[in-house]
Amino acid sequence: MKLRPLILAGGSGTRFWPLSRRSRPKQLLPLASSHPLLVDTVSRLAPLATVRDVLVACGRVHVQAIRKMLPKLPRSSLIVEPVGRNTAPCVAVAAAIIAKKSPEAIIAVLPADAHVADPHRFRRDLSSAAEAATGGSLVTLGIQPSRPETGYGYIEVGDRLAESVAHRAIRFVEKPDLARATEYLASGRFLWNAGIFVFRADGMLTAIEKYLPEMTFGAREIANAHGTKKFDAKMNRLFPELPSISLDYGVMEKADDVLVVPASFGWSDLGSFAALPEVRPRDEAGNVLSGDVVAVDSKGCVVLGEKRLIAALGLTDMVVVDAGDAVLVCPKDRSQDVRRIVDELAKRRAGKLL
Amino acid sequence: MKLRPLILAGGSGTRFWPLSRRSRPKQLLPLASSHPLLVDTVSRLAPLATVRDVLVACGRVHVQAIRKMLPKLPRSSLIVEPVGRNTAPCVAVAAAIIAKKSPEAIIAVLPADAHVADPHRFRRDLSSAAEAATGGSLVTLGIQPSRPETGYGYIEVGDRLAESVAHRAIRFVEKPDLARATEYLASGRFLWNAGIFVFRADGMLTAIEKYLPEMTFGAREIANAHGTKKFDAKMNRLFPELPSISLDYGVMEKADDVLVVPASFGWSDLGSFAALPEVRPRDEAGNVLSGDVVAVDSKGCVVLGEKRLIAALGLTDMVVVDAGDAVLVCPKDRSQDVRRIVDELAKRRAGKLL
Repeated sequence: MKLRPLILAGGSGTRFWPLSRRSRPKQLLPLASSHPLLVDTVSRLAPLATVRDVLVACGRVHVQAIRKMLPKLPRSSLIVEPVGRNTAPCVAVAAAIIAKKSPEAIIAVLPADAHVADPHRFRRDLSSAAEAATGGSLVTLGIQPSRPETGYGYIEVGDRLAESVAHRAIRFVEKPDLARATEYLASGRFLWNAGIFVFRADGMLTAIEKYLPEMTFGAREIANAHGTKKFDAKMNRLFPELPSISLDYGVMEKADDVLVVPASFGWSDLGSFAALPEVRPRDEAGNVLSGDVVAVDSKGCVVLGEKRLIAALGLTDMVVVDAGDAVLVCPKDRSQDVRRIVDELAKRRAGKLL
Repeated sequence: MKLRPLILAGGSGTRFWPLSRRSRPKQLLPLASSHPLLVDTVSRLAPLATVRDVLVACGRVHVQAIRKMLPKLPRSSLIVEPVGRNTAPCVAVAAAIIAKKSPEAIIAVLPADAHVADPHRFRRDLSSAAEAATGGSLVTLGIQPSRPETGYGYIEVGDRLAESVAHRAIRFVEKPDLARATEYLASGRFLWNAGIFVFRADGMLTAIEKYLPEMTFGAREIANAHGTKKFDAKMNRLFPELPSISLDYGVMEKADDVLVVPASFGWSDLGSFAALPEVRPRDEAGNVLSGDVVAVDSKGCVVLGEKRLIAALGLTDMVVVDAGDAVLVCPKDRSQDVRRIVDELAKRRAGKLL
């Protein structure tokens, strides 16, 4: 069974400013380890897949950085989106490209910006999903929830298939309010949707033809040019006209034969600086410290230094991030609002800091 | 009446780290205005005295910076202390130097690191003190207290002299505990000791001979060499042997004829970053911001930037200071503990940051 990962690296997240910038979004930052999240996302696939098996979708401004951090990635494995159109168009193009040579190849859609604590379990669960997808089902990995998180989508889990670890997926639910999230957690019947989807190339193309028929022609046209000099031109001309919609909403929620493999490999979507203590080593006071930091009487903080010394005195649950040309200071529970700073900088036209 | 200010610029305060360093202590920093505190201290004397009338006492490591910021200060007006010996030895030397030419000259001892909100009133009060000192009394300025501060010494005020604004000073009290400070404030009979003393040169020499007789010979020997090439050598040899004691404790507390002029010129000793909002412009949210700062949902903060952008998000009563090679973050009410960081750096032998 051939696994062809499609790694979605097109995000432009602002919640890690000042480390993240337009040309250096979250997935290109070494947030969880010493490697960029994208590189970890590729590395943890081995031996299921290598860098030569993956496709990477990204924006134009990221191409240079990605080629530098993944030097063995063939240029033709980059699907450069001229504009962001959510996930479905990109998946459609990738599926069409792969189906040209191997219609039954198993594609695994993986966000480039998540952290996985246990890569061994991750590969085991991914293999199970691939196994479950061989018959043509659309399969998703569902993460065992640990809290009533309102920032994620959920998947309601149905009966388990005979002789499989996969269950029927009853429905996908968009981000719920706290009451419903609490209910979901208590019920034991809901898993987090981590945006990880596994399916046969031809199976996905069939589903897209059924649920997003306006996607089919463009995706096929683009795929036909793959491997030729015309590919980028086709992408530039046709991709912006594909409907901007997520794979979850456009296909997965509507399809009949959807399965979910319950997974528990220590997944974190690293939504903000506040999530770093979940994935990085902490000192005895619960601080995540990197760079040249002196912390006195400080606990529960995230202090990321650069070349300059950062001195933290008497801080509790604070974020301090030095990116060389900008320093952010905020309480940990405000770190999801960093966008407010980015918005302010945009107003000031502080271009090089965006 | 000739006023000869002696400006004490020998302090090595660490409470403004990372802005302050060994070679760049608080009094050499532009903390309250765009000029270093020392320069403001000299400037606000005019027209009572000019830079050519003052003596400036400082440490060796400060000479270069002081000559740069006070280019009109004659080299012979610098009393360079080879080691810190508290205030009395320096005052003794200065009084002896000045008494050589004009024994009746009025000396005003002024710390270099305080802020004065109303220079006009300051000069008026200083003139009153000088007036009161012409008969030979030792005069101090007493600041009207505004809170039960436990970080200052107090002066108990007695009867007012006839035809004068000066009162008898009953006693000097060292830093009190909160209960006593509260009592002092309520009594209305206590003023803050700001370390500003005004006296005739010969009057102080007489008092020193009486209360600190072991100071007299050395101070006179040093003064005799003033204006010659031997001055620095004499300072280096004799000054370290003078008793290390404060003028307050060694003389003022013991002398009989001590007067106090109540003053209210908006004095602040700028004890830490937390004091800056008292003396610097605040935005509508009570923040003191300087440099390139974006503050969102932040109030009561002190954010001092340098070339780099500092982004403050959701901060209340915090201090953020970027000194170029080091950044400090602490709650405002911990800013008097910045020494803890300096101690930590000393342990690490982080020499250039000290």
